[in-house]
Amino acid sequence: MTDFTRTRALFDLPQGITYLDGNSLGPLPTATADRVARTVTQEWGAQLISAWNTADWMAMPRALGDRIGRLIGAEPGQTVIGDTLSIKVFQALAAALHLNPGRRVILSDTGNFPTDLYMAEGLLKLLPDGFELRTVPPEDVAQNITEDIAVTLLTEVDYRTGRRHDMGALTRLAHDNGALTIWDLAHSAGAFPVHVAQGGADFAVGCTYKYLNAGPGAPAFIYVAPRHAEHAEPALAGWLGHKAPFAFDLNYIPGAGIERMRVGTPPVLQMAALEAALDVWEGVDLDALRARSLELADRLVAAVEASTDLALATPRDPAMRGSQVSFRHPQGYAIMQALIAAGVIGDFRAPDILRFGITPLYLSEGDIDHAAATLAQILDSRAWDRPEYRARKPVT
Amino acid sequence: MTDFTRTRALFDLPQGITYLDGNSLGPLPTATADRVARTVTQEWGAQLISAWNTADWMAMPRALGDRIGRLIGAEPGQTVIGDTLSIKVFQALAAALHLNPGRRVILSDTGNFPTDLYMAEGLLKLLPDGFELRTVPPEDVAQNITEDIAVTLLTEVDYRTGRRHDMGALTRLAHDNGALTIWDLAHSAGAFPVHVAQGGADFAVGCTYKYLNAGPGAPAFIYVAPRHAEHAEPALAGWLGHKAPFAFDLNYIPGAGIERMRVGTPPVLQMAALEAALDVWEGVDLDALRARSLELADRLVAAVEASTDLALATPRDPAMRGSQVSFRHPQGYAIMQALIAAGVIGDFRAPDILRFGITPLYLSEGDIDHAAATLAQILDSRAWDRPEYRARKPVT
Repeated sequence: MTDFTRTRALFDLPQGITYLDGNSLGPLPTATADRVARTVTQEWGAQLISAWNTADWMAMPRALGDRIGRLIGAEPGQTVIGDTLSIKVFQALAAALHLNPGRRVILSDTGNFPTDLYMAEGLLKLLPDGFELRTVPPEDVAQNITEDIAVTLLTEVDYRTGRRHDMGALTRLAHDNGALTIWDLAHSAGAFPVHVAQGGADFAVGCTYKYLNAGPGAPAFIYVAPRHAEHAEPALAGWLGHKAPFAFDLNYIPGAGIERMRVGTPPVLQMAALEAALDVWEGVDLDALRARSLELADRLVAAVEASTDLALATPRDPAMRGSQVSFRHPQGYAIMQALIAAGVIGDFRAPDILRFGITPLYLSEGDIDHAAATLAQILDSRAWDRPEYRARKPVT
Repeated sequence: MTDFTRTRALFDLPQGITYLDGNSLGPLPTATADRVARTVTQEWGAQLISAWNTADWMAMPRALGDRIGRLIGAEPGQTVIGDTLSIKVFQALAAALHLNPGRRVILSDTGNFPTDLYMAEGLLKLLPDGFELRTVPPEDVAQNITEDIAVTLLTEVDYRTGRRHDMGALTRLAHDNGALTIWDLAHSAGAFPVHVAQGGADFAVGCTYKYLNAGPGAPAFIYVAPRHAEHAEPALAGWLGHKAPFAFDLNYIPGAGIERMRVGTPPVLQMAALEAALDVWEGVDLDALRARSLELADRLVAAVEASTDLALATPRDPAMRGSQVSFRHPQGYAIMQALIAAGVIGDFRAPDILRFGITPLYLSEGDIDHAAATLAQILDSRAWDRPEYRARKPVT
């Protein structure tokens, strides 16, 4: 059994803060500062250009991808890190459309994180006429997987409500109808056990700054099922995805398998932070993490429902949710501002969603109870009803 | 007059190393380690998600872009940082083709850095049939700027030879023929004064880990001429280029001007290193830098030509070169390995090029003289003629 007291000690959490926003930006692992400092001074500073080889920077995108692979149910050699999630969505989409010629519809849903839809829109403007992005409500996805769909582009867990798609069932349905699947795991990787290979996903993408705690602007990842890896056409044909980057050929020849999903020079300082973040996951049993996540989530729901009139936005069925709990309230923005001012950090998503990330690596029952009690106190006292909390500022 | 003794003191250069590879990876500025550590612990660690606003992470891509703008001759609001140079090339190309409808030829040259050509190839595979990448020898570019060219895609300074295109003349010729221009400034920004606005460039892109010293995997930049900024169609339509990223609209509406060239979440740790690196440039007069660069380059050429049989690959005319000096030798690879083993770091580019970056911010006459003397000694003694130096390893 994973000891979550042990993992909690691996994070630098600020005093006096209860952090329920690890679904947006995970907190700082204790080892990260030294790991990054080592890369800056002992690798870059002391070894200069040689560090690409001596410190293995060049190999890190694959090595880190393999470590993420363990968390999402991929085998080594199927996952690589780099760029941002938006870029990885574009890569996966372009490759999937190429792998399924004759079909021209991308199916997504209105619960998808907007950048996935935007990247699809941008891609469609480049492609010849006739390609289409079809966006349906999340609950209607299954019935819209028809024989004209080239690829489904779905985020497994809804960033607002925490509602979770059934990856296995939708993937089977897609395949039965001749469609490929791209799964965005932004709110899945590190949130619960993911089984991309077992579930049959064709492509999966995700970010590492949420549940994986790799820091602000940490690189994204992409998984390509081995059956596609040698056929996927890289639309973003960057030199580090070339078969022989340092031959400096004038023509692009894709690298073997997942290598071709690399694009440009990888962000070495961010990779150092990702490496330290992944160390925390060593020895963590993802089934135990999931059990603990549900326990803490249920505890939060019960306490909030017992003491406030917030409406639960997250499905009650454990199979239908990720690792966040969301509530609705017309004054959600102001309430969240008051809560943050009181040291309990969640976040708000328009129009009325209060989000709380449930992250067992560093959250305890005491944190959950304190968050619920603070929330109840703010609602009871109408502490949120102040101009400074009502004035909307940009949030991330 | 810029005092280059002062700027040299702003770098942590390893003892016993003469570093002539700043055209590949700039060395560590002294202030960077603390700046990055502050971002890790005091911003991410202490402020968590709030740091996107409190530490202004969200505004940094524009602020850093403006600071780079000063070095490339752009006004504030015309340059933004993010992603990698490969991605920025793709953005610029897609936007340029859209701005010049009816034309379908991208003109580039065989001296371009391969990733620029690869990204063009990848884009062409997405576009409807009929688009073409036409690649000619560098010296034939001018005569190939014909009325069917949609856009020229040129790297100002050749990464192997250091040969420099005439940006102003080629841009005028392109415009006279109805073509747009994309200038890759990878080996220009921080190497000498660049005048993108004055020179009439339509788009410019570049990286910050070479002459700008922002560290391994540092973000790239993109400049869009103000006359195009509100019309450029973002092909990589990421959420942070949206007009209102936090409205989470389902449809993409491009942000104002250069904002739309942002894609995904920016790499905050790399931005901290870039910020520290740009501090070094405060007060540096770029004309003085150029004068000093030519002085040091000429000194290296004179010394090497006087003492070895290496063949100069870089043009002698100052107007036709950047800030590197390259020589050719059939045994270039082994010679460079021996030189590196002796503590003088340059690099090798196939098939026979020895490259030396001339970076006045931290190089002195003594460094140049030492490099030339070491090189001569290695050639005289045939110290390069050993199996361990001849065996080719991947280099960056």
